[in-house]
Amino acid sequence: MAEREPEKTPRQSAVEMTEMVLPNDTNIFGTIFGGRLMQWIDIAAAIVSARHSGQHAVTASIDQISFLAPVKAGQVVNLKASMNYVGHSSMEVGVRVESEDVVTGERRHISTAYLTYVAKDESGQRVRVPRLALETEEDRRRHGDAQERTSRRKSWTKHRGPSTP
Amino acid sequence: MAEREPEKTPRQSAVEMTEMVLPNDTNIFGTIFGGRLMQWIDIAAAIVSARHSGQHAVTASIDQISFLAPVKAGQVVNLKASMNYVGHSSMEVGVRVESEDVVTGERRHISTAYLTYVAKDESGQRVRVPRLALETEEDRRRHGDAQERTSRRKSWTKHRGPSTP
Amino acid sequence: MAEREPEKTPRQSAVEMTEMVLPNDTNIFGTIFGGRLMQWIDIAAAIVSARHSGQHAVTASIDQISFLAPVKAGQVVNLKASMNYVGHSSMEVGVRVESEDVVTGERRHISTAYLTYVAKDESGQRVRVPRLALETEEDRRRHGDAQERTSRRKSWTKHRGPSTP
Amino acid sequence: MAEREPEKTPRQSAVEMTEMVLPNDTNIFGTIFGGRLMQWIDIAAAIVSARHSGQHAVTASIDQISFLAPVKAGQVVNLKASMNYVGHSSMEVGVRVESEDVVTGERRHISTAYLTYVAKDESGQRVRVPRLALETEEDRRRHGDAQERTSRRKSWTKHRGPSTP
Amino acid sequence: MAEREPEKTPRQSAVEMTEMVLPNDTNIFGTIFGGRLMQWIDIAAAIVSARHSGQHAVTASIDQISFLAPVKAGQVVNLKASMNYVGHSSMEVGVRVESEDVVTGERRHISTAYLTYVAKDESGQRVRVPRLALETEEDRRRHGDAQERTSRRKSWTKHRGPSTP
Amino acid sequence: MAEREPEKTPRQSAVEMTEMVLPNDTNIFGTIFGGRLMQWIDIAAAIVSARHSGQHAVTASIDQISFLAPVKAGQVVNLKASMNYVGHSSMEVGVRVESEDVVTGERRHISTAYLTYVAKDESGQRVRVPRLALETEEDRRRHGDAQERTSRRKSWTKHRGPSTP
Repeated sequence: MAEREPEKTPRQSAVEMTEMVLPNDTNIFGTIFGGRLMQWIDIAAAIVSARHSGQHAVTASIDQISFLAPVKAGQVVNLKASMNYVGHSSMEVGVRVESEDVVTGERRHISTAYLTYVAKDESGQRVRVPRLALETEEDRRRHGDAQERTSRRKSWTKHRGPSTP
Repeated sequence: MAEREPEKTPRQSAVEMTEMVLPNDTNIFGTIFGGRLMQWIDIAAAIVSARHSGQHAVTASIDQISFLAPVKAGQVVNLKASMNYVGHSSMEVGVRVESEDVVTGERRHISTAYLTYVAKDESGQRVRVPRLALETEEDRRRHGDAQERTSRRKSWTKHRGPSTP
Repeated sequence: MAEREPEKTPRQSAVEMTEMVLPNDTNIFGTIFGGRLMQWIDIAAAIVSARHSGQHAVTASIDQISFLAPVKAGQVVNLKASMNYVGHSSMEVGVRVESEDVVTGERRHISTAYLTYVAKDESGQRVRVPRLALETEEDRRRHGDAQERTSRRKSWTKHRGPSTP
Repeated sequence: MAEREPEKTPRQSAVEMTEMVLPNDTNIFGTIFGGRLMQWIDIAAAIVSARHSGQHAVTASIDQISFLAPVKAGQVVNLKASMNYVGHSSMEVGVRVESEDVVTGERRHISTAYLTYVAKDESGQRVRVPRLALETEEDRRRHGDAQERTSRRKSWTKHRGPSTP
Repeated sequence: MAEREPEKTPRQSAVEMTEMVLPNDTNIFGTIFGGRLMQWIDIAAAIVSARHSGQHAVTASIDQISFLAPVKAGQVVNLKASMNYVGHSSMEVGVRVESEDVVTGERRHISTAYLTYVAKDESGQRVRVPRLALETEEDRRRHGDAQERTSRRKSWTKHRGPSTP
Repeated sequence: MAEREPEKTPRQSAVEMTEMVLPNDTNIFGTIFGGRLMQWIDIAAAIVSARHSGQHAVTASIDQISFLAPVKAGQVVNLKASMNYVGHSSMEVGVRVESEDVVTGERRHISTAYLTYVAKDESGQRVRVPRLALETEEDRRRHGDAQERTSRRKSWTKHRGPSTP
């Protein structure tokens, strides 16, 4: 009889990351510049992928990152990243980013990001990753949304061919 | 009689950027880590937006970045960024990234990125940007593709509501 | 009747921070270098202090940081920081740091740190901070230990005069 | 007859380091942020340890760093680091940090730090370090103070067990 | 009959690099600090040398860099680097740097730099580099100027002996 | 009677800087990359200029930097910078750089640099700087060499016109 494949829940790989915006993270407007926030998002999501796969993981694509509001120097940035969807060797991670003004206590949703990672072994070959065990209602909603994004991307690519900028 | 709106061609704001991957840009595999490449892409595209709008511009969203192949330390990275599509105050920029092995001379297409920027004045208010004058066949193809991506994103958001990770 | 002073529990300001050790964080042994880990510890503890005080806070002293085991590039570092003890305008924060090997799943306690912060207003003047409301058994143990460290430091300084390196 | 152990004086490993505070080293108050100053202190002290031991050295603990006054962007920071005390493979280094305002010429003592390093060979194993030959009155005072700090730390740890934050 | 030596034109190795001055690149005057601009110049020139030689190249000397005008945060910096002169294993690269104010559109020549690189193979040994095929009038003028600089440096060094600061 | 102009000796502004080459300072050969060493040289020389002038100073030109030998990660770099020559508002600083292998104790002269700085007041205007009082034989030799370099540069520029890369 076939061995049951290993499974992990989103909770087992979820990452929380808290950062402070320092003056050297800012653009000409005194707010965090896009490239810096992307770095934090990429690191948080890469750790989720590494934890889920038990391997080092590399970024395959950024499927969407929105920047909803600026964050000023001195404010705190909170990132919550979790595994949404798992293919054979690829994994979609969602990251929700909030800013926090420590003086007023106000928190704002400033960014939503979806990124895809691929797990690789030491020789750099793609490896199979554990299946995703959906535990909560939230897990299932995120999984459904990710499936939709995936199929939408696939149909679009089939219809159009790969885009060339 | 109405004043004719100012126009700029993609050529007038196009950016070329050449970088070398240093050891401190790399991940555990000795290849450039995603967050670093994102930074370069963001800077190149932000300059295109600033040139087109004649204003400083901030990242509104990353609509897609693919990472097609790894780039090793010591290799050269070439980014070409140009304006694809212009709305009232938002602009879609496309970035094509190639790696270059200086020893073998081999060049590879390693990333395609689409990002949206918003022009702001000194007080941080969104400002209207010049229209895009399409000059070449290439300009028109990119503009058409960008329009399709935009309407696809809009219809999707309308259908689904904003996604929550 | 006197206004009751504001209070906050350690839980209200606790910070969790997750980082990945990249090659550019490492020393000649391929493990994280001390100064880098200190930076992460300082940022985590500064955020705890800012949250508790509702002000920006500056580092007044590092009272102790131990480095118990090396962390290699590619490993994940998890920092948990919380408020231990509060004086008039100074606050002692404790940080516990663990490393995590994503391949083996092994976690190790790699560092314990105690740092003192001072809350300042916009003009840079020290300001009074909310009292610490101890909620759990853990809170009380940490608070007792911090009190002992504080009185030990004071008696030592009184006995010796300020040290001069 | 036993070979005489090698010895080195504090003068033979002393380090002087001069830095300038750039805007990217600063916090929200426009003064150097703690984590940055820690990095400079760690590097200066690590060089002292490497010179004394003739090996690369890693940070074992920070025993104390005080931050007595803020340093503004544009000011110069001067670090003087020297070997205070030597055990079998561990070494206590003291660092005295002064700020210097180049316009007024004013110098201020802004930080005192004590850190412990361990010398390691290429395989990462602890190695024995040369004894410390005390040359001057200053050397002897620092050595005496370091001995006291060491015994104080040991008695405290014995009494309490290792602290857990 | 002797094998014809390989040749490359300046056009084949020319590099264009576009950067944006971020707040963390600036000094106390809010303009780019010298050391940062030097880094960009070094990277651009090193890529030219690597492309021409088909090897990795290291900086042998900076023969001259002038800084003609300050560049403010938010401005764009454009570097154009090309091969001027080629010896057996050494290569002189010229870099012209312009600033660009994206709001006013004004461009200024802010720096001229001449640097010499040496090509090395994987074992770190100097290797012979392709000859320089001069294509345009511009190529010939730059080559003539570089020859003059080279002979001037040589006569000076012969006359004086190596300088000791 | 005329007020005597203020004077400073080279000793009053001399800077010593000690750094350690970390893996993130290195190129593909595992040795320090040129741009990083340039940064350290620029900072050391800028501090000399600030100390001599009692003003902040900006880099006007790099007149020469030689790189005589590579420096590996883990090695120590020692910079000694001092004022060679003073004009009305410009100052020539010489920097001598040595590497030090902490295991073998070997020291090598790895770089000689001459840079020119200009002192500016808060509004960014050039200001007059104190004259240089030559104290030692060494001071006089350096001053003479700097005078020769200055007149050589001037005659060359007059003869040729400003160079255009």
